[in-house]
Amino acid sequence: MSVTDKPWGGRFTAENDALAEKFGASISFDQQMAYEDLQGSLAHVQMLAHTKILSAIDAKKIETGLKALMNELQAGKITFDVELEDIHMNIEMLLTQKIGPVAGKLHTARSRNDQVATDLHLYLKNRLPIIQQAIWELQAAIVRKASANVTTIMPGYTHLQHAQPISYAHYLLAYYQMFKRDAERFAFSEKHLDLSPLGAAALAGTTFPIDRKYSANLLGFSQIYQNSLDAVSDRDFVVEFLSNASILMMHLSRFCEEIVLWCSYEFNYLSLSDAYSTGSSIMPQKKNPDMAELIRGKSGRVFGHLLGLLTTLKGLPLAYNKDLQEDKEGVFDTIKTIIPSLKVFTGMLSTLTLNPKKMQQATEHDFSNATELADYLAAKGLPFRQAHRLVGELVFEGIQKQKNLQDFSLTELQSHSSLIQEDVYTALKPEIAVKRRNSAGGTGFEQIKQQLQTAQIELEQNKPKIAKHK
Amino acid sequence: MSVTDKPWGGRFTAENDALAEKFGASISFDQQMAYEDLQGSLAHVQMLAHTKILSAIDAKKIETGLKALMNELQAGKITFDVELEDIHMNIEMLLTQKIGPVAGKLHTARSRNDQVATDLHLYLKNRLPIIQQAIWELQAAIVRKASANVTTIMPGYTHLQHAQPISYAHYLLAYYQMFKRDAERFAFSEKHLDLSPLGAAALAGTTFPIDRKYSANLLGFSQIYQNSLDAVSDRDFVVEFLSNASILMMHLSRFCEEIVLWCSYEFNYLSLSDAYSTGSSIMPQKKNPDMAELIRGKSGRVFGHLLGLLTTLKGLPLAYNKDLQEDKEGVFDTIKTIIPSLKVFTGMLSTLTLNPKKMQQATEHDFSNATELADYLAAKGLPFRQAHRLVGELVFEGIQKQKNLQDFSLTELQSHSSLIQEDVYTALKPEIAVKRRNSAGGTGFEQIKQQLQTAQIELEQNKPKIAKHK
Amino acid sequence: MSVTDKPWGGRFTAENDALAEKFGASISFDQQMAYEDLQGSLAHVQMLAHTKILSAIDAKKIETGLKALMNELQAGKITFDVELEDIHMNIEMLLTQKIGPVAGKLHTARSRNDQVATDLHLYLKNRLPIIQQAIWELQAAIVRKASANVTTIMPGYTHLQHAQPISYAHYLLAYYQMFKRDAERFAFSEKHLDLSPLGAAALAGTTFPIDRKYSANLLGFSQIYQNSLDAVSDRDFVVEFLSNASILMMHLSRFCEEIVLWCSYEFNYLSLSDAYSTGSSIMPQKKNPDMAELIRGKSGRVFGHLLGLLTTLKGLPLAYNKDLQEDKEGVFDTIKTIIPSLKVFTGMLSTLTLNPKKMQQATEHDFSNATELADYLAAKGLPFRQAHRLVGELVFEGIQKQKNLQDFSLTELQSHSSLIQEDVYTALKPEIAVKRRNSAGGTGFEQIKQQLQTAQIELEQNKPKIAKHK
Amino acid sequence: MSVTDKPWGGRFTAENDALAEKFGASISFDQQMAYEDLQGSLAHVQMLAHTKILSAIDAKKIETGLKALMNELQAGKITFDVELEDIHMNIEMLLTQKIGPVAGKLHTARSRNDQVATDLHLYLKNRLPIIQQAIWELQAAIVRKASANVTTIMPGYTHLQHAQPISYAHYLLAYYQMFKRDAERFAFSEKHLDLSPLGAAALAGTTFPIDRKYSANLLGFSQIYQNSLDAVSDRDFVVEFLSNASILMMHLSRFCEEIVLWCSYEFNYLSLSDAYSTGSSIMPQKKNPDMAELIRGKSGRVFGHLLGLLTTLKGLPLAYNKDLQEDKEGVFDTIKTIIPSLKVFTGMLSTLTLNPKKMQQATEHDFSNATELADYLAAKGLPFRQAHRLVGELVFEGIQKQKNLQDFSLTELQSHSSLIQEDVYTALKPEIAVKRRNSAGGTGFEQIKQQLQTAQIELEQNKPKIAKHK
Repeated sequence: MSVTDKPWGGRFTAENDALAEKFGASISFDQQMAYEDLQGSLAHVQMLAHTKILSAIDAKKIETGLKALMNELQAGKITFDVELEDIHMNIEMLLTQKIGPVAGKLHTARSRNDQVATDLHLYLKNRLPIIQQAIWELQAAIVRKASANVTTIMPGYTHLQHAQPISYAHYLLAYYQMFKRDAERFAFSEKHLDLSPLGAAALAGTTFPIDRKYSANLLGFSQIYQNSLDAVSDRDFVVEFLSNASILMMHLSRFCEEIVLWCSYEFNYLSLSDAYSTGSSIMPQKKNPDMAELIRGKSGRVFGHLLGLLTTLKGLPLAYNKDLQEDKEGVFDTIKTIIPSLKVFTGMLSTLTLNPKKMQQATEHDFSNATELADYLAAKGLPFRQAHRLVGELVFEGIQKQKNLQDFSLTELQSHSSLIQEDVYTALKPEIAVKRRNSAGGTGFEQIKQQLQTAQIELEQNKPKIAKHK
Repeated sequence: MSVTDKPWGGRFTAENDALAEKFGASISFDQQMAYEDLQGSLAHVQMLAHTKILSAIDAKKIETGLKALMNELQAGKITFDVELEDIHMNIEMLLTQKIGPVAGKLHTARSRNDQVATDLHLYLKNRLPIIQQAIWELQAAIVRKASANVTTIMPGYTHLQHAQPISYAHYLLAYYQMFKRDAERFAFSEKHLDLSPLGAAALAGTTFPIDRKYSANLLGFSQIYQNSLDAVSDRDFVVEFLSNASILMMHLSRFCEEIVLWCSYEFNYLSLSDAYSTGSSIMPQKKNPDMAELIRGKSGRVFGHLLGLLTTLKGLPLAYNKDLQEDKEGVFDTIKTIIPSLKVFTGMLSTLTLNPKKMQQATEHDFSNATELADYLAAKGLPFRQAHRLVGELVFEGIQKQKNLQDFSLTELQSHSSLIQEDVYTALKPEIAVKRRNSAGGTGFEQIKQQLQTAQIELEQNKPKIAKHK
Repeated sequence: MSVTDKPWGGRFTAENDALAEKFGASISFDQQMAYEDLQGSLAHVQMLAHTKILSAIDAKKIETGLKALMNELQAGKITFDVELEDIHMNIEMLLTQKIGPVAGKLHTARSRNDQVATDLHLYLKNRLPIIQQAIWELQAAIVRKASANVTTIMPGYTHLQHAQPISYAHYLLAYYQMFKRDAERFAFSEKHLDLSPLGAAALAGTTFPIDRKYSANLLGFSQIYQNSLDAVSDRDFVVEFLSNASILMMHLSRFCEEIVLWCSYEFNYLSLSDAYSTGSSIMPQKKNPDMAELIRGKSGRVFGHLLGLLTTLKGLPLAYNKDLQEDKEGVFDTIKTIIPSLKVFTGMLSTLTLNPKKMQQATEHDFSNATELADYLAAKGLPFRQAHRLVGELVFEGIQKQKNLQDFSLTELQSHSSLIQEDVYTALKPEIAVKRRNSAGGTGFEQIKQQLQTAQIELEQNKPKIAKHK
Repeated sequence: MSVTDKPWGGRFTAENDALAEKFGASISFDQQMAYEDLQGSLAHVQMLAHTKILSAIDAKKIETGLKALMNELQAGKITFDVELEDIHMNIEMLLTQKIGPVAGKLHTARSRNDQVATDLHLYLKNRLPIIQQAIWELQAAIVRKASANVTTIMPGYTHLQHAQPISYAHYLLAYYQMFKRDAERFAFSEKHLDLSPLGAAALAGTTFPIDRKYSANLLGFSQIYQNSLDAVSDRDFVVEFLSNASILMMHLSRFCEEIVLWCSYEFNYLSLSDAYSTGSSIMPQKKNPDMAELIRGKSGRVFGHLLGLLTTLKGLPLAYNKDLQEDKEGVFDTIKTIIPSLKVFTGMLSTLTLNPKKMQQATEHDFSNATELADYLAAKGLPFRQAHRLVGELVFEGIQKQKNLQDFSLTELQSHSSLIQEDVYTALKPEIAVKRRNSAGGTGFEQIKQQLQTAQIELEQNKPKIAKHK
């Protein structure tokens, strides 16, 4: 296509360099927003008709053409042309082929600057509920698993050392809280997503008597941008989305790290379903937690997109600059990363098999009940700091003699402190240790049941309204 | 100090390596949280008394000791010891020196894990209003400047090319919107900041009958963490803060980029107050927009802190790991970066002098009124795409002949389209072009006045309640 | 495909989850390494024959099959299957279809772990010369442009303020130096790229009497990895590549920033060829420096890939983990970004038109000759600091009186210092100022000529040997 | 200090805003370069004397003054003043106080722009050998540990699953290779570090007949920057340094991850010296691998500095901009991070105690000898893919029957393949499996000895020449 045939070619004479043209074209990726571009154009032309900027007849022709293109798109019948640069020019050309020069009236009171911003808002707005549902389903899976494991005892870790025995349900509910915050962040992100830029035109608004709220309503936006320069140059909503996605991936990567650990020969706390494992091309015995590793690895990618966009935006003067074309691929890739990450993770978690015996045993042959003894002494009046020291010395003696605390005789224990009585052996049992940590939010069984109840109410309240989506 | 004298040294025999000890110690930076650490301990001991876990007498001794330390801290009389690793151990040792072994009872039903999380929550909670006020003051300065410049005409830019004439007030109000979103994000971040981790203990809660809500109330937290593992390992609130700070710095860096540009010999749209400029050690004539450059440059630093923390958190198993010690310095530095960035920027903006003559002239000898002509033709019924092409050809002709559009005679113009009439010359004037862009959110003067009115109402509603803070 | 039909399916019973399978599959992107995978397999089978691990007959069959696949690949006749996960399994299956079960012998003494590492080394090794040539061509274009502009005077900037007049050639040669360092970095990166991992097998080497140097030689590697665990888990060569690419993009983004600035109405120092510009869909007059903006914007993307990979690698235990699958897409995208960025930039630079009159004028009506006067006084014995202050006061007076330094009468000047004589007016001329900055590496014309001569010798010495590549 | 008293204050009238002044001042951190600033000034004045730009008498006075300041600095007797902004102005003022106005002649033919670049080059140049020695010492520690553990058998991991038995020495030598590449990268970085910017002046060189090579020689630089604009705006050497530091930290974080894992109750492969561990304030039994966690956590911080600087540099026009002031703190902090990280890690590694029995046992009750059996069959002529499948089925049967491969009777094995003979039991032993992986770079003992020999030669060749440094 000659430059003078291009929609913006009036003042140009020389041809575009072929490589530059291809380099600058966004159609290879922004065609993913074809549906949203048509959606936006449809609302725009309906607004132009409503405000009588276009005649009813012209508007009808354009509307019919756009709807026909929408059908063709959904039927997979549309192909795009790299010479037309982007999705907007491609759609306009397809429309012109379909309805003739009247198509040229669609771009009245509009620019590609507000158009692309509208498309991207719609694109994220259309996908947010899918992400929210995927988070909800993961939370629900966690709660189901936790409900079934209130009394499953395992070592609680700090510094990857046995710290204190806890319930597996309590462990799971920590992740429930993380994903709950993720859901809250994505919900808040709607505030800055749910704004229509349409009608901001190139940067300054337009002289045509448009009605921005009318087209915003048609598109399901509850607000319009209050400043046209801001409307075309704002990408906060994208950065917020990438930041929220990064935190989500950080949570998933922590959970995955533990799944990888717990699948190891040494931990052996759980075993993944074959459906979520793969083998090795050389080592016949291997069953690898590939999905957990891959999700963990993908956190880097999403962090990279966040940083990439912040860097791109840094120092840009107002209003639109071509640099902003770089806002899309990172977002598209992030969406393609987090939705399957959530779904695959949910499937993997729901189908894994625990090894509760191994988990329980791990709490019986260690010193993770040392805090019990310190608390036992502190409750009997010894300042905590002295109780801590006394137990530390007992642990040291135990390591030397290869005994755990419960293996010392009462006489031996009493030689360290006369505050110790027979009831100490009960206090040192893992189940008792867990049960007695009944402070608010603690791992005590009563606390867990309360956490579960709250979680179930929250899930019920936030039940996604949309239908299941593949 | 010998390892066996350390508060956790019971089971240790060999001494710590000196370099390792220094490397692992956080006291060099976490002493910034000394006030918050004392605040947290005070609430903790009051709760221990309230629940009768400590006797009234013991609690009173501890409380008196802590309050004395608080006074000494504010009087700058406290020095810290690197051998005591962190702020928590330092404070406990200072307390012991003051009130004797009863100080050891303060750590009952508490761990450094929940303690440090509490301190960091408090630290950010105490500083958030200062940041919010600084944003508010910047917004107010923008609105003042905009109010005084509704009819100051300047070229609006896209791709740093003259696009369409706009009002300088309109330009400023685009930034008002950005900072408004920043304020909204920081306000939302309170949700995940305003949660007390105190009482989560090491990771699993405690066997003591503590009352977490009681101490939370004393500290001004409206909620407590619902899960103890989550309470000690959550750093979402820090990442959210760094993400919000990154977006804020991105906005400031865009604004600064334009100030740097506009101060240049070539633009010459504004001149900074000497109070916000510096000179050169070699070139006597220089007056550099150092502050704008520095703020722009500091965006990288804040983005780096965000990325650094996300990377640190990625893949960490639950619950506390020493890696989490890395959560603080980035935050402290970010706070020390954004508060003066906001204040210095506000001062720089408030005191700069515009060169409205130069700004206006720039709109008179260019082709930024080309859209007017296209819209003029489209309004008369020519499909916009054809109008655009026709004007593009006129621009090309103008460049050849070194004429702007308003310099063509009516006959010349009409030779391109008979739709053009005498009234075209009015439409081509910058003021008229600005005035007529009266669509919602556009640069038209009426629109700007409405934006200003809304902004003033918003500022009034969000007026910070806190006293001025240095 | 049933799990038990998978090449690693011996120990598996349940089917893979469909979404997990798709999520874990890399064939959608690693098919870009199909050529390298075949290259590696060919060398491997030739080594197996050479060491008699495979019979000559079996090896021949496999070799013939691989060569046939290579031809089909280059003819675009091969399609890949997502169920076969990755490029390695796809190729093995295609080979099996072609030559039967003997294909199963190809994987003797090899694992996908060393295979994928080999492919990625080859992939980068094959593309490095293309990048190096593109850098060389940009350097050559800079030198051509500089040669033609030795005496083109322009303002040199610091803080975007006029600092001292310089030659445009001198300005260009600063970029020559940056790209020279880029070339040196990419050359150094060969050291860690030019290592064959083939034969490291899964992680520990193999019991077969393979000859790793033999296959390395066939593939053009000059060294082999000395440790098999390192061979399969090392991705340093990828991080180095991304780091080098990031620095390159940072240089390009600085150059682009200046092109965007200099194309503005206000600077008007240069005008881009239509071949490297685009227009606006709404504003008929626009000619935007899109390519420069886009390249500048793409720096963020490459930085993001660097950070993403570092994050992914952080904290991974040895040896291969599925997280490492995330090493590829960022590299592929980076290559697809930097090659056209370099080429488009080279074209844009080569075809732009300067406006030397505007550049020169900008040096005549400013104070950028103030250092001349200070140096003039210092050369006559006044301590530099006093000379600087005296000139600073003259500049201040000049701004008040709207005079530049050369506009002051000799009497006026002498009233500030009797050291000033008639010859001062010569010293204050921009050309003289440029010419006299003849210290090594300075902007003096003699220095520039020397820089040009050195550059031409360097370019001749580093002339890329490979044929021109599209 | 009044603005007109500032060294650049000639053209200024209004005072600097106090907060802006503090915000813009770099003295709080660039005082770390005080030694280098004096070093650079000394070389500069000696050059000014050598070229007779200054008289021998003036130069001598300045030199004496600088040397006196150097002594005072090393004696800790110098304090700096924030009103003097930066280290350069502070030193100049101190010099003036010492020797009077002749101090003002030091700044002849120099600017802060080339001065700060020189300081930063010197700063890194002075510290590079310390880093290189720390890497060398870590490599030496690895080799010592490996030499003592050639026959220590442990499971080799992929996907954190047991893959094949390996030697612990082999494992360690993989890290030797990584740190060897780190050393090579830091060595290469000298190329772009070892360049003197001094004499580039503000940006364009100077009219004084300076001799840049003379001062470069005095400072130990082997080259000078060839272009003055490049000299003052280049920060490639800093980005290279941060990139190298990031890769180094990534290696350390991988090593640390494994130390944390191996210290766990479940792995129990090693135990850290008390000297490199800390305890818990609440749990008396805890002995935490704090140092390993902290080093792992600090990788994020260094990656953040890399990204931060790349972002800051992105899009900056030539030559010096105040944004560049942001180049220092990240570097200083990185140096303060990597040197102790290396030293503490080396100490921790050298003093840890292995549990070889536990490591060995882990290879005896798993299926990590499955590849042996597949190789055994492939060596007898079965295509590898079929051998792999057959062994996979045996593994599956073994899991069902709770037997490892070596526990099957010969009859049972032969029922799967008649190729299996009595000698299979030897092949299945871990030591034999390790020993027989004798391919180049494999884990076979002969190979390890060769790797060790090479490493010892390399260490001898690269022995750091500098004295031990604290």
